Amino acid sequence: MIAVLKRGTTAEQTDHLIRWLKTMNLDVHVSSGQEVTVLGLVGDTSRVDMELLTSLEIVDSVKRVSEPFKQANRKFHPNDSIIEAGNVKIGGGFFAMIAGPCSVESSEQIIGIANEVKEGGADVLRGGAFKPRTSPYAFQGLKEQGLKLLLEAKKVSGLPIITEIMNVRSLALFEEVDIIQVGARNMQNFDLLQELGKTKKPILLKRGLANTLQELLMSAEYIMSEGNENIILCERGIRTYETYTRNTLDLSAVPVLHELTHLPVVVDPSHATGRAQLVPSMALAAAACGADGIMVEVHNNPSCALCDGAQSITPAQFTQLAHAVKRVREAIQ
Amino acid sequence: MIAVLKRGTTAEQTDHLIRWLKTMNLDVHVSSGQEVTVLGLVGDTSRVDMELLTSLEIVDSVKRVSEPFKQANRKFHPNDSIIEAGNVKIGGGFFAMIAGPCSVESSEQIIGIANEVKEGGADVLRGGAFKPRTSPYAFQGLKEQGLKLLLEAKKVSGLPIITEIMNVRSLALFEEVDIIQVGARNMQNFDLLQELGKTKKPILLKRGLANTLQELLMSAEYIMSEGNENIILCERGIRTYETYTRNTLDLSAVPVLHELTHLPVVVDPSHATGRAQLVPSMALAAAACGADGIMVEVHNNPSCALCDGAQSITPAQFTQLAHAVKRVREAIQ
Amino acid sequence: MIAVLKRGTTAEQTDHLIRWLKTMNLDVHVSSGQEVTVLGLVGDTSRVDMELLTSLEIVDSVKRVSEPFKQANRKFHPNDSIIEAGNVKIGGGFFAMIAGPCSVESSEQIIGIANEVKEGGADVLRGGAFKPRTSPYAFQGLKEQGLKLLLEAKKVSGLPIITEIMNVRSLALFEEVDIIQVGARNMQNFDLLQELGKTKKPILLKRGLANTLQELLMSAEYIMSEGNENIILCERGIRTYETYTRNTLDLSAVPVLHELTHLPVVVDPSHATGRAQLVPSMALAAAACGADGIMVEVHNNPSCALCDGAQSITPAQFTQLAHAVKRVREAIQ
Amino acid sequence: MIAVLKRGTTAEQTDHLIRWLKTMNLDVHVSSGQEVTVLGLVGDTSRVDMELLTSLEIVDSVKRVSEPFKQANRKFHPNDSIIEAGNVKIGGGFFAMIAGPCSVESSEQIIGIANEVKEGGADVLRGGAFKPRTSPYAFQGLKEQGLKLLLEAKKVSGLPIITEIMNVRSLALFEEVDIIQVGARNMQNFDLLQELGKTKKPILLKRGLANTLQELLMSAEYIMSEGNENIILCERGIRTYETYTRNTLDLSAVPVLHELTHLPVVVDPSHATGRAQLVPSMALAAAACGADGIMVEVHNNPSCALCDGAQSITPAQFTQLAHAVKRVREAIQ
Repeated sequence: MIAVLKRGTTAEQTDHLIRWLKTMNLDVHVSSGQEVTVLGLVGDTSRVDMELLTSLEIVDSVKRVSEPFKQANRKFHPNDSIIEAGNVKIGGGFFAMIAGPCSVESSEQIIGIANEVKEGGADVLRGGAFKPRTSPYAFQGLKEQGLKLLLEAKKVSGLPIITEIMNVRSLALFEEVDIIQVGARNMQNFDLLQELGKTKKPILLKRGLANTLQELLMSAEYIMSEGNENIILCERGIRTYETYTRNTLDLSAVPVLHELTHLPVVVDPSHATGRAQLVPSMALAAAACGADGIMVEVHNNPSCALCDGAQSITPAQFTQLAHAVKRVREAIQ
Repeated sequence: MIAVLKRGTTAEQTDHLIRWLKTMNLDVHVSSGQEVTVLGLVGDTSRVDMELLTSLEIVDSVKRVSEPFKQANRKFHPNDSIIEAGNVKIGGGFFAMIAGPCSVESSEQIIGIANEVKEGGADVLRGGAFKPRTSPYAFQGLKEQGLKLLLEAKKVSGLPIITEIMNVRSLALFEEVDIIQVGARNMQNFDLLQELGKTKKPILLKRGLANTLQELLMSAEYIMSEGNENIILCERGIRTYETYTRNTLDLSAVPVLHELTHLPVVVDPSHATGRAQLVPSMALAAAACGADGIMVEVHNNPSCALCDGAQSITPAQFTQLAHAVKRVREAIQ
Repeated sequence: MIAVLKRGTTAEQTDHLIRWLKTMNLDVHVSSGQEVTVLGLVGDTSRVDMELLTSLEIVDSVKRVSEPFKQANRKFHPNDSIIEAGNVKIGGGFFAMIAGPCSVESSEQIIGIANEVKEGGADVLRGGAFKPRTSPYAFQGLKEQGLKLLLEAKKVSGLPIITEIMNVRSLALFEEVDIIQVGARNMQNFDLLQELGKTKKPILLKRGLANTLQELLMSAEYIMSEGNENIILCERGIRTYETYTRNTLDLSAVPVLHELTHLPVVVDPSHATGRAQLVPSMALAAAACGADGIMVEVHNNPSCALCDGAQSITPAQFTQLAHAVKRVREAIQ
Repeated sequence: MIAVLKRGTTAEQTDHLIRWLKTMNLDVHVSSGQEVTVLGLVGDTSRVDMELLTSLEIVDSVKRVSEPFKQANRKFHPNDSIIEAGNVKIGGGFFAMIAGPCSVESSEQIIGIANEVKEGGADVLRGGAFKPRTSPYAFQGLKEQGLKLLLEAKKVSGLPIITEIMNVRSLALFEEVDIIQVGARNMQNFDLLQELGKTKKPILLKRGLANTLQELLMSAEYIMSEGNENIILCERGIRTYETYTRNTLDLSAVPVLHELTHLPVVVDPSHATGRAQLVPSMALAAAACGADGIMVEVHNNPSCALCDGAQSITPAQFTQLAHAVKRVREAIQ
């Protein structure tokens, strides 16, 4: 870590600062240039409060030289991590198509979709049982009952399943779930992350609505620092001023994360765009820039003429998409 | 709620949609204009999934006519709510100066500051015991021990206290805390909000890093819908592309929230700006636009020459600020 | 256009509003529902000031039913526009690789690159002569001299050229330029747009730093409304809070623009990311989601060992990329 | 300027870089620490392309030690600049109330408002003649005719006037205008800035929709570097994801700009919020945090019952606001 001091900082002030830094068990190397004084901090700088240090009056700026994430860092783990969920592998060349409905609604619905997406090329079944909703009055999912239906669909279809957890207290219910999803709103629910770190379950960690990629990696680090290294990162769009799409899908996150970390990266174009007609093109773009998987919403309600055009695509569209994704992946080999 | 259908929507499609809306116990009034067809939905529309409805192919746009928040809504509760914490009132003309250190560090420190800010004009003592940190390796506060020290300072100074809760499981520790703070990162931790709704404690709810004012009010509604109406809203800056300040303080939130809700609104200029030298001017601006209170970080370490210029102001600066805030409040009467 | 009136609006207020709207030669259809009153405005609503109408006290919201852009609108021009620049076509299935250096530096440099990128698969040569710079003290390009060198490279290589215009007064210098680029900072320099509309030159219009897709289309409309329909839209990243990349490339702009307009859409991954190592993956993603072309920076300075890793890729990398782009385009047919 | 090199950079690479930097007439001081190598660049670094330097593969980060703006910099000009426009002074303790209609509509309208706002406490009359509009089909102002009416109102009322310029070619028409306004969309129209720098007119420079404060100061520098030091900066709201207000007014810009520059800072709450009912509170907040002036829209159409509630306030509200602003300014002395 490097701290650049402001011009005009006195020797006494510099001494004060160095003494304080040394109380944190850091070695401090001073380079006094003509323009400025630069302090090089050596030791375990991950404990240093950068915001506090930056806000000191004599400090111009603070810069980490080593990234603050360790276990998630590719530098210390050059090979891609491969996460196993049931019989499925994700990362390191293994690509997963994750598909299913927004919410689990009934046994018939979820088993129907499970079979259709499996046939169409899905590797993992998704489905919401606990649904985080902005309004306390909105439908919050079938909860435990939804989880049971999802497990039934797992059994029937043979597909591993992924579903979202919303709080620590329901963790026991997720024993047979293959991948536990942490939603965007909980990306910095540190307490939840730490508890998930004590399990061995694969965790799919979604990027928060307005979080940087470094913050996403620090949240992965929260889980890993407790002992669980089975993490899949997920880009699902960030909040910007553009209103045509629900969020702005930041696909550069894929190559950037591949550079910074060994963890696999999955893209969710359904929530990112909020419009079914945009899902296929953004899924193909995700495959083209190297994503390790794609998670899409699929509905199969034949009577729901209305549903076409919502953020979910049909099983037939999914099948077509799965083929196109495969061709794009071959094209970039 | 109003749904505007796209031009070219067939009568059959419209019928389908109306039938589906009626299954949600809504009355549907159709106005077919030359340009478009508009559906007026009457009934309990707070349960309608606006995102899903908007994403239907035949729907151009959906607009709520009644706000989705009810108990927080000024329309149904025209008078300002006054929240009582210990002997202090906030809202409805009662203004609170909330002051104290970022973190509780020692008995001497917190009692020292408590006495100084009380003398300087503070109504409530703040101090962090559980600290949400981006990094799992950073100092996370003194936790239970910090809470104990804060309660000691409360006893000695007579000031009511406010401190942050990070998870449901530590709720029992907060029994003697006067105001429980929910931090920006937990603004949409719905599980935590619901548990706090089951208490009668005053809750200070901070706006999330990238949340709209409507989302803030929906989170207040989560607490209120469980029975706890003692809520103080807090504007603490939002994330933008500007890098000079840590966040961008959105002071228009104060008059907007006063228009939409009866709940009091407090402003935190310390976290919003991240720089001590900006705190006084932004605190005065907050008072001038009608805030019901100001929450500022104050440090009192006489030996920490470095701390001047960090995001905390000194007790002497606080005393001066408290006087100036009083004068500004008189000027706007 | 639809205006939704607030509940509680009196008949007199509604009458006032309707009379005012009629002075703008609009027909007004009133639908009074149980919940609200909705006014349907028929006629040339493109002249209505939506912001003013929205800000009236009795108006809840205003919604355009027809998009405010006409000539750029796919509804009125269902077939893809194909823009011709020299012997190159862009749009409607024709894909263009646009490549070249950030700035034109010397005859040797620009001719060297021109030949190399042509060999590597480029269709158009790019190169900056007039450079918009945040600082008045920074290098602003070789200007007229740069243009001359670029025209020389055009002659030698046979490639059509594209370069940026910064003000109306230099328009005469661009006579032999094949495509005139309007930079992000000038996207809403309406005076410049109108002047370009009076020419017949192909214009590549870059999306502004924080502009919506609708604003981009309205700027295209400025050019088209003066008679020039030869417009290529360009997504080049928008400003967000993420700092790892220079901007956030919004690739969903590609399918969204293809839905809304018949104009071709090109993607510039070099400026969007600011990092050479991210350019190939984002270029492939752009091709996968249907872009009509890619514009990348290529440098060829063999002595500049440093330049590797900057936002420009080398001619060898470009050649490889051009092949991969071709394979991806075949994969999505 | 400081450049931090990445770990693992070879001596040869470092030498290459240093040689290149020296070709730009910079002295380079090397400090090789245990962690990293830091280069201190001494000389005229304002010409160094930070983005290019940052994007080099061996460079970790680049940091300016001296701000890139010089003439606007408070360090080199510690005293507040006082800008004179007619008989009015702005800055250095002089505060200006700038008021008037959005657009000049008729002789009667503009003279009527001029007299009313003068009586109510205005120092400067504002009014739009050339209006930048997102749509080419929208009303673009009365243009030359509007300017003439404004000059008439200046003569009758004795108030100096401010109005917006949109392009270089209409500069001759602005001879008798007291303050020329550069709108948000033109903040980086560098050609226009340079031309205005060749005049001696006071320029009110509005912050762009998504521009940082440093970019605003660099645009002021464009004008100053041509010889015109009569610049007033204006905060008018930035674009964020919040939709309740038109833009998000960033009031921390006021104390930050006062720290960085000697130029006066004016706040425009009308355009920032887009709602009349928010204008008074945000104007008071601006005064409380030290703004040197406030620019508000005032309408006086007695027959336009509708206009109440739009972004303009009435003359009576303006008079009241002017008094309250005065009281707040006294409170913060």
